Amino acid sequence: MEPIERAATVRYAAAADLPDALRGADALFVYDFLSRALPSAWPAADTLGWVHIASAGVDPVMFPELRDSDVVLTNSRGVFDAAIAEYVLGLVIAFAKDFAGSLRLQQQRTWRHRETERVAGTSALVVGTGPIGRAVARLLRAVGMSVAGAGRRARRDDPDFGTVVSSAELTDHVADVDVVVAVAPLTEQTKGMFDARAFAAMKPGSRFVNVGRGELMVTDDLVSALRSGHLSAAALDVFEQEPLPPESPLWTMENVLISAHMSGDVVGWRDALVEVFADNFARWCEGRPLRNVVDKRLGYVPSMS
Amino acid sequence: MEPIERAATVRYAAAADLPDALRGADALFVYDFLSRALPSAWPAADTLGWVHIASAGVDPVMFPELRDSDVVLTNSRGVFDAAIAEYVLGLVIAFAKDFAGSLRLQQQRTWRHRETERVAGTSALVVGTGPIGRAVARLLRAVGMSVAGAGRRARRDDPDFGTVVSSAELTDHVADVDVVVAVAPLTEQTKGMFDARAFAAMKPGSRFVNVGRGELMVTDDLVSALRSGHLSAAALDVFEQEPLPPESPLWTMENVLISAHMSGDVVGWRDALVEVFADNFARWCEGRPLRNVVDKRLGYVPSMS
Repeated sequence: MEPIERAATVRYAAAADLPDALRGADALFVYDFLSRALPSAWPAADTLGWVHIASAGVDPVMFPELRDSDVVLTNSRGVFDAAIAEYVLGLVIAFAKDFAGSLRLQQQRTWRHRETERVAGTSALVVGTGPIGRAVARLLRAVGMSVAGAGRRARRDDPDFGTVVSSAELTDHVADVDVVVAVAPLTEQTKGMFDARAFAAMKPGSRFVNVGRGELMVTDDLVSALRSGHLSAAALDVFEQEPLPPESPLWTMENVLISAHMSGDVVGWRDALVEVFADNFARWCEGRPLRNVVDKRLGYVPSMS
Repeated sequence: MEPIERAATVRYAAAADLPDALRGADALFVYDFLSRALPSAWPAADTLGWVHIASAGVDPVMFPELRDSDVVLTNSRGVFDAAIAEYVLGLVIAFAKDFAGSLRLQQQRTWRHRETERVAGTSALVVGTGPIGRAVARLLRAVGMSVAGAGRRARRDDPDFGTVVSSAELTDHVADVDVVVAVAPLTEQTKGMFDARAFAAMKPGSRFVNVGRGELMVTDDLVSALRSGHLSAAALDVFEQEPLPPESPLWTMENVLISAHMSGDVVGWRDALVEVFADNFARWCEGRPLRNVVDKRLGYVPSMS
C-alpha cells in the first residue's frame, strides 16, 4: 500500500469504524470482500466516487444504494483465474481416481484395490463464461475433456468453450454432461439456478463442482440429489452460509468434498489483490480509464467480446 | 479370451495348478502379474516359447531361469500410460491444494481457510522414460509445469521431456525439483535408487510420487526424510511389500497419501489387458513379429528411439 499512502490519505477501517472512515473519502478499497458492513455505512459516503473490491464476484456490494448510484465499481478480475482452474481440475481428477476413498481407507489401515476412471474423454459444462470459467475450460480441455460453457448468450465458436449454451436454458443442456462446474457471478438471474429441477436434469451419476458462490445453488436440493444417488458426488468451495455451520448435513456426506472458500487463494494472493488495486489507483489519480469496471446492471465485468 | 480359445487349447490355472498346466504349453499369459508362482513351476515348462505378462513392469518374472532362456517375453506396454498420467497429475494438484487437509478438516466439521499453491510454474523430474513416464511428462507440461526426465541415457531434445538426465546421477539433478515422480522399471540398476542419499539431495520441502514399483525406494529412508520434514509429502501407489502391512508407519503419516497399486487400473483395464494379449497371440499364430518384446537383459521394452 506504500505507493497509495504516498499519494493519498489512507484510512484503514474495520466494520465498526467504517462510517467515520468513509466520510469525506473519495475511494474505497473493500479488502474484506465478504464484509457486510458497507450497506449500513453507506449514508456516510458523501464524496465517494469509486469502490474497488478484492474479489472477482461483486455480489457482496451490490446493494441498491451503491448499484443505483454514480459510484464506479471495479473488481479484482484476473487474480484468481488460473488458481481456481487448477483447483477444479484437481477436484475432477480426485473424483475420477477416488482420492477421498483412498484417504479414508488409509485412516483405517485398509488396503483395498478399486478400479478408477479416465478423465480424458469425459465432458464438462462450465457455467460462467468470465475469465475464471475460461481458465477452467482451457485446463479441462488440456487433459482431454470435452468442455462447453453456459453464459448469458448462446453462441458457437467461442475461443475457449467452442459452444456456449444459454444459462437460462441450463436444464436443456446438462443431460449428457459428466461434471457441471458452477463459476457464474451471483446475480438476480443466477441465484438458486442449481435447484431441484436443474439437478434432476443432470446425468445420473454426474458430479457437481461449485467454486462460484454458494447462493448459486439451493443447498437442500443438492443434498437431496446426492442422497438419492442421482448425483454421484459434489465438491463445494462456497456455501450459502459461510463458514458452513457445524450442523450442515454436507460435512458428513462421503460423496461431498468441502473446502473453506479458498480455491483461488494461492500463496501471494493478498499481494496480487493489492497490486490490482494499486494499478487502478494510479489510473484513477491520472484520470485514465479504470480496469475491471463492473456493469452494475449485469453484476459483473462484461467480457470484451 | 474367445478368439484364443477357438485357436488353441487354453488352460486356466491358479498357482497350485501351474506346473501341470505349464507342461506341454507353448505360450503362457501371466494374468496375475504379481503372482510369484512361476519360478517354482518353471521346470515344468518343457515346450514354452513365449510368456506374456498383464503388466507394464516385468520384474515379477525376471527370475534367472526365464531371463537366461530363449523364451520370448512380452508385456502390456501402453494399457496404463494415460491413466497413470492422470493419476500423477491429480496427486500433484492434490498436494498443491491440500485436498487431504480439507478432507481431514471436513471430518472434524472444521472450517479453516488456508492458502494454496499454484501448480503451473513448478517443476517435476520424471524418473523413467518409457511410455508411462512420457504420458506423465506430457500431462504435467499441459498444466504449465516444467518437466525433465531421468533415464538410462542422458540427452537433450527429447520430444516429451526436453532434457533427460542420467538416472545413475540422479542426486546431481534433484536439488531444484519440486516433485520427483518414480515410474522407472524395476531392475538391478533401479532397485533402491530412492534411498537416503537420493532423498537428501532433493529440494527441501519437495514431494515424492511413486507409481512405479515399491522396490525402487528404500521405505525406511523415505519415512526418515518425511519425518524430518526434508520432504514435505509423498504419494505412494506401490510398496516394497504389497498389500502394505498394517504395522507400516506410512499409514498414519499425515503427509503420505496411500493407494492400493491402482493408479493405472481404470474401468475396462482387464479387457484392455486381454486385448493386448489377444493381438500378440494372433501375431504369434501367424508368425508375425510380436509387440512389446522385452529386452530381458535390460528388464523392459526398449523405446524405439
